[in-house]
Amino acid sequence: MTTHFQQELNKLKENLLKMAGLAEQAISNAVEALVDRNTALAENMIKEDQKINEMEILIDEWCLKLLALHQPMAADLRFITSAMRINTELERIGDQAVNIAERVISLNQEPQLKPYIDIPRMALITQAMVKDVLDSFVNGDTNLARSVCEDDDLVDALNDQVFRELLTYMMSDPKTITRAVHLIIVSRCLERIADHATNIAEGVIFMVKALVIKHRADAKGEEKKK
Amino acid sequence: MTTHFQQELNKLKENLLKMAGLAEQAISNAVEALVDRNTALAENMIKEDQKINEMEILIDEWCLKLLALHQPMAADLRFITSAMRINTELERIGDQAVNIAERVISLNQEPQLKPYIDIPRMALITQAMVKDVLDSFVNGDTNLARSVCEDDDLVDALNDQVFRELLTYMMSDPKTITRAVHLIIVSRCLERIADHATNIAEGVIFMVKALVIKHRADAKGEEKKK
Repeated sequence: MTTHFQQELNKLKENLLKMAGLAEQAISNAVEALVDRNTALAENMIKEDQKINEMEILIDEWCLKLLALHQPMAADLRFITSAMRINTELERIGDQAVNIAERVISLNQEPQLKPYIDIPRMALITQAMVKDVLDSFVNGDTNLARSVCEDDDLVDALNDQVFRELLTYMMSDPKTITRAVHLIIVSRCLERIADHATNIAEGVIFMVKALVIKHRADAKGEEKKK
Repeated sequence: MTTHFQQELNKLKENLLKMAGLAEQAISNAVEALVDRNTALAENMIKEDQKINEMEILIDEWCLKLLALHQPMAADLRFITSAMRINTELERIGDQAVNIAERVISLNQEPQLKPYIDIPRMALITQAMVKDVLDSFVNGDTNLARSVCEDDDLVDALNDQVFRELLTYMMSDPKTITRAVHLIIVSRCLERIADHATNIAEGVIFMVKALVIKHRADAKGEEKKK
């Protein structure tokens, strides 16, 4: 491995961390816009997603260039192909945050349905998952990656809880239905973000240990893990 | 390029087509289980998803091996990295079909809310998108890939229509709420499948023309395209 190549890999890591920072910020802004009923923040956040989209294209092109010019083997090859996947997942996290912001704009046109408690909790957990999983990637820390996979179960449970609670609102008062459906979708977007972080975590473990833990739940005959 | 390498690439294509066939079948079975209220088919389909998961792992490992052993350049490099992405997208299409099947099992425990018209239409379009986009990949046909991107707008429009129609059901009769929410989620799963097909289509165009049309809507300042 050349020193120049090593420098390039380090720069790639830095840029993925930067992109993960943007994705975390997008989640945080989207949920702040919800809680503070701040439509301007939601609108601004939707515009800012363009930055994540542009970074995705740059990082992807860069990875292809590294593969073509340096023809890396074994661990480096796996590192670069993992970086390409993480890149895609981060861009989709940005898209889910945009989905939330779009719902927030609709929600803010009506009175607030209820105090938001579980959704901000879900947002905090998913932001931490995105941060942790990128740390696990740059440090090759499979224990941290595994803990991200475990956090996903927590987010799934909160999503179920939010769903059930909002069903009761809708059933007792049909006037709440539109707002409740928007909130169910916000909650599902956070759950999808946790799934993307889990996809990255599984990739990190795969990269480090060349061990496939994807679809581990199926193998154990448990309920399908997505 | 060696003849052996070319044979390997052809086998890779064949396997991706086979996996796409499984994904198409999963969509078809999930929606058939909905329309025919066939819970056994839904349960069986959830088990069958294991095959798609196993194929994803095999194809992924295979692509990494091709990259490491043959160190392909330019077009071949792009082909293999595209294959890795398509592989991931197809596995996620399988997951969305499982999501639908899970909702179908719940829906079949109550009387049918309404005749299903738009959802089977969405399913037919998304199945055709998956088929077409894989054909566009193996033949390098960017026109076909572009038409898949256009079909995505149709599926988005149908998803909006289903959503609005089900809102009216919920508002006029709270007893329909649980079933309507399940159907809203089924419709969103189909819309997500169309998104995955569109992701593949954008990748195909990128692969063939080395042209980035991803995030084209943002560039045009139109509404965010996900």
